[in-house]
Order: sequence, then C-alpha cells, then structure tokens
Amino acid sequence: MYSPLIDELMQAFRVLPGVGPKSAQRMAFHLLERDKEGATKLAQALTDAVEGVGRCDCCQTLTEQSLCRICANPRRDSSVVCVVENPSDIIIFEQSGAYQGFYFVLHGHLSPIDGIGPSDLGLDLLESRFSGGDIKEVVLATNSTVEGEATAHYISEIAKSHNILVSKLAQGVPLGGELEYLDGGTLAHAISSRTRVE
Amino acid sequence: MYSPLIDELMQAFRVLPGVGPKSAQRMAFHLLERDKEGATKLAQALTDAVEGVGRCDCCQTLTEQSLCRICANPRRDSSVVCVVENPSDIIIFEQSGAYQGFYFVLHGHLSPIDGIGPSDLGLDLLESRFSGGDIKEVVLATNSTVEGEATAHYISEIAKSHNILVSKLAQGVPLGGELEYLDGGTLAHAISSRTRVE
Ligand SMILES: [Zn+2]
Ligand SMILES: [Zn+2]
Repeated sequence: MYSPLIDELMQAFRVLPGVGPKSAQRMAFHLLERDKEGATKLAQALTDAVEGVGRCDCCQTLTEQSLCRICANPRRDSSVVCVVENPSDIIIFEQSGAYQGFYFVLHGHLSPIDGIGPSDLGLDLLESRFSGGDIKEVVLATNSTVEGEATAHYISEIAKSHNILVSKLAQGVPLGGELEYLDGGTLAHAISSRTRVE
Repeated sequence: MYSPLIDELMQAFRVLPGVGPKSAQRMAFHLLERDKEGATKLAQALTDAVEGVGRCDCCQTLTEQSLCRICANPRRDSSVVCVVENPSDIIIFEQSGAYQGFYFVLHGHLSPIDGIGPSDLGLDLLESRFSGGDIKEVVLATNSTVEGEATAHYISEIAKSHNILVSKLAQGVPLGGELEYLDGGTLAHAISSRTRVE
C-alpha cells in the first residue's frame, strides 16, 4: 500500500508485543514525519542491545557484563537465592526493598508440550550453585500459574536434595496472576511472610 | 535499574507514540529474550526508512521515490486534487475506492501558535500546482477540527483565486473527529456527496 521501505518498517514494528497493523502504521508515520532522530536512536539502541546484551554467568538475567550488577555486588546476602521467571521480576523485588539476596532467572517455566525442559531453563547452572555450599535458602517466586507452580515444585526437589531450605512467597500474591503486575507493597509483605515448603 | 544498554533501549522505545515506561520495558525484554532477529530487522528497517524515505516532489507524501506511486500513475484523474493532513489519510481514500484523483499532503495544519504557517505546509508548492492549469477541482479533506477547518478555508481562498472549484467532503464525516478513524464505507459516501464551497 505504501512505498516498500515504509511497508517494511510497518511490518518490522509488528515484532513488538501488543503492536497490531494500526499501531505499526502510527509508529512508522510518527517517526518518519516527526522524529527521524528518535528513529535513528532507536535503531542504534536495538543494534547495540542485540549485540551487547547476553545473560549473566551466575543468575542468567539479561546484562552486557559477564556478571550482572546484583551478582557482582559483594554486599548482597549470598545465602539466599530467589528464582524468578523473568528479568523484569527482579526489578519488582528490588523496588520492594524487602530482599537482599541473589536471584536466578529461568526465562520461562517448564513446559513439556513446548519442549521446554530443565536444561532450557538453566537448572543445571542453578544446581551447580546449590552445590557450591553458600546457599542456605531458595525462595521460589515463579508465577502462580500451573506451569509456574510445577516449575517451582521441580526446583524444590533439587534444592531439598542439597539440604537447602525451600520457601515460597507468602499468600498475598494473587492466584493465577503474574508477578509483573504486582505492586511493591504487596510483594514486600509476601516476601516477609514467605512460607517454608515441606 | 537495568544494565546501560537495556536502559538505553527502553528509553529509545519511548519515542514511539503511546509507549510508556511499562510498554517500553516489555518491548525491550521481549526482543532481547525471544526475538533478537526481529530486533535486528527492526533496527535495519528504521535505518533504511530514515535514510531512504523523503517526500514526494508533487504531493509531499512520504516515499523513497521522487514521485510517489499515485503521482507517477498516468491513469489517475489529474483534474482533481484532494488535500489531506496526513499520509495515512491517503490510504483511507484509496481503500474507499471512491476517488481517482491526486492528493496533496500537508503534514499538519495551520497553527500560528506553534509557528506553523502556509510555507511549512508546502502551500507554495500546492499553489504552483494550481497555476499549472490541469487542476479543475480541489477537494478539501483536512480533519474537521478548528485548525483543520481554518486550514481548509485558507486553501479554498487560494484555489478560488485560481478559478478552481473547491469542494469538501459531505456530511458523514463525524464532527471533531479525525479522518484516520473513519471506515471506508462512510468515507465513500462522503466523497460521492461532497459539497461545493461557495
Ligand atoms: Zn546475575
Ligand atoms: Zn505524490
């Protein structure tokens, strides 16, 4: 409908979550009509991030360092590791101010139907951290969905085999909800009253 | 909060219309976690479009050619020109199937308070097209906002001074609305019953 470069740009915007044909068109025209500088900066930021950002060697969160800021911080409590599904979950924990330990990011959950098994989530890396001896407690903070709970259960079995205390967030996390949408206050409460998994 | 490259990417997404901090975060993580290839394509499409897309020499719409597809089409009716505010308005006209003439894209409307005057909209170029002698009618299809109407009035005065018939879209265009949100059927009706501006 438009000239090829504009069509391609609109199509390219469709890779973004929540962006349909109408939004893609608005984005393309907005940038080409009013903010070519912003478009160039976005292109550069995308290229830099794609090339530079990988996963933390220790917790698997997204970072351009070999160790993320949290894993590289010697003042964190190395006796606790909190397991989350997504990098953005870490931010919610940090904003709550109620957690001083380390993290482990699964980038998803176990999903046999999609062929996602323990090694895809890096659970071998997590188990090697359990073997290290520093970790005394693992806080399971996967989403409270069926898949999230199943993943948490799987990890709790590994942790117990290493004699590591397993806990999960206290009630207060809405059932069926995703951590990302939780406010800091609710989460702070859920962290401080986390319950032990027997 | 995140590592610098991720922060920069999130910030860069904020140039897109309708994208707040939360959407920007979701976009950045989605691409970095699940679609680096899509991110690279988007970066390339942005770069190509920023470098390649300019304005049609004749109608000012966005295109990477010196003449857009419509202006370069000898089978269009060269006796009518339709004046619209945005390139995307052209698509709505084309989809309606009710218009065979040419277009002229203002990329906005007169807005003295923002320092946007006739030359910023390319009205000198439009007037030189009026002077060419081919154009017998101008269809004013600016948005039916105060600024859009004022712009239409200004253009109608120029057109009349060149003895060009001036028309506007018939009732059917919702008052206070923007053309972009109109369906093709309503627009087709409005085009076929357009009224002459005296
Ligand atoms: Zn880390
Ligand atoms: Zn053109």
